[in-house]
Amino acid sequence: MPFRSPIKHCRNCGSAVVYRVPDDGDTRERAVCPACATIHYENPLNVVGTVPYLGEQVLLCKRNIEPAWGKWTLPAGFMELNETATEGAQRETDEEAGAQFEMEELFTVLSVPRVGQVHLFFRARLLSERFDPGHETIEARLFTEQQIPWEEIAFRTVRETLQRYFEDRRQGRFRVHILDIL
Amino acid sequence: MPFRSPIKHCRNCGSAVVYRVPDDGDTRERAVCPACATIHYENPLNVVGTVPYLGEQVLLCKRNIEPAWGKWTLPAGFMELNETATEGAQRETDEEAGAQFEMEELFTVLSVPRVGQVHLFFRARLLSERFDPGHETIEARLFTEQQIPWEEIAFRTVRETLQRYFEDRRQGRFRVHILDIL
Repeated sequence: MPFRSPIKHCRNCGSAVVYRVPDDGDTRERAVCPACATIHYENPLNVVGTVPYLGEQVLLCKRNIEPAWGKWTLPAGFMELNETATEGAQRETDEEAGAQFEMEELFTVLSVPRVGQVHLFFRARLLSERFDPGHETIEARLFTEQQIPWEEIAFRTVRETLQRYFEDRRQGRFRVHILDIL
Repeated sequence: MPFRSPIKHCRNCGSAVVYRVPDDGDTRERAVCPACATIHYENPLNVVGTVPYLGEQVLLCKRNIEPAWGKWTLPAGFMELNETATEGAQRETDEEAGAQFEMEELFTVLSVPRVGQVHLFFRARLLSERFDPGHETIEARLFTEQQIPWEEIAFRTVRETLQRYFEDRRQGRFRVHILDIL
């Protein structure tokens, strides 16, 4: 889990930083090093994942980690350096569900400014009903829309993505949904 | 411009860090503090911007900052904390072009793993031909497809977005394009 508490020391020289607006035309406070002048920027992070489906069913994973231990989620996690958004979503689906699947189109882009995140979910067509979840998952299981444990979904971005998925499926066409979770 | 050189010191206590795989089940090397055990994660950044259009023309900005000083770009910049992707794209279009416009749909999502970035461009309908560019822009100008200075476009994500824009416009329908710049 990325570290989001205030920066206390300079990553370059270790001196204590001060939060102030830099003198370079910037308009926001940044952690600035008074010793070596390094400016430390903090920006939103991407969470990338999939909606893995097989016929009428969608795959959910029961979380074995905090936050939201024991709740159900779509496979997703923080995008890493040296990967594309699609590769990250694929990697997280491998790691958390151990599923066989083919990546499809981008489906939802959800901004969550309260926590400084953007969540991107792609559709993924499952090729098998067998799953081999990793240590972050208690259980990986297929659910029809009627079976989804709506009251035990881990995150609002997952709930919104699932709702849009079943709506679009009923209408027979999928589009990309841009949503803000305020 | 966010800082992407290696982390040397812990943001929490200022001690020198070491790069190693943490003992928590992680599989990647992170900057770990031997003194206070803080793990420092580094993740891709989002660049958010717009394709501002008026009839057959698109607005480009001539850059007054490095990198790519003097080259033409679509208005775009790093997404900040406490804003949505749409708000960030709107803010950058205000700052760099001083344009009057209405935000429209997401248009391109481009992963650039070589620099650890994801670029998101939205279409934006211009409401006026008058622009009031900020200090990061030498000149803001409208171009038809034939007038676009293709050899002087600042970034490949901008060129790919412009190409897709004019292709989709000819076909009379816009869709969301997911592209990897490798």
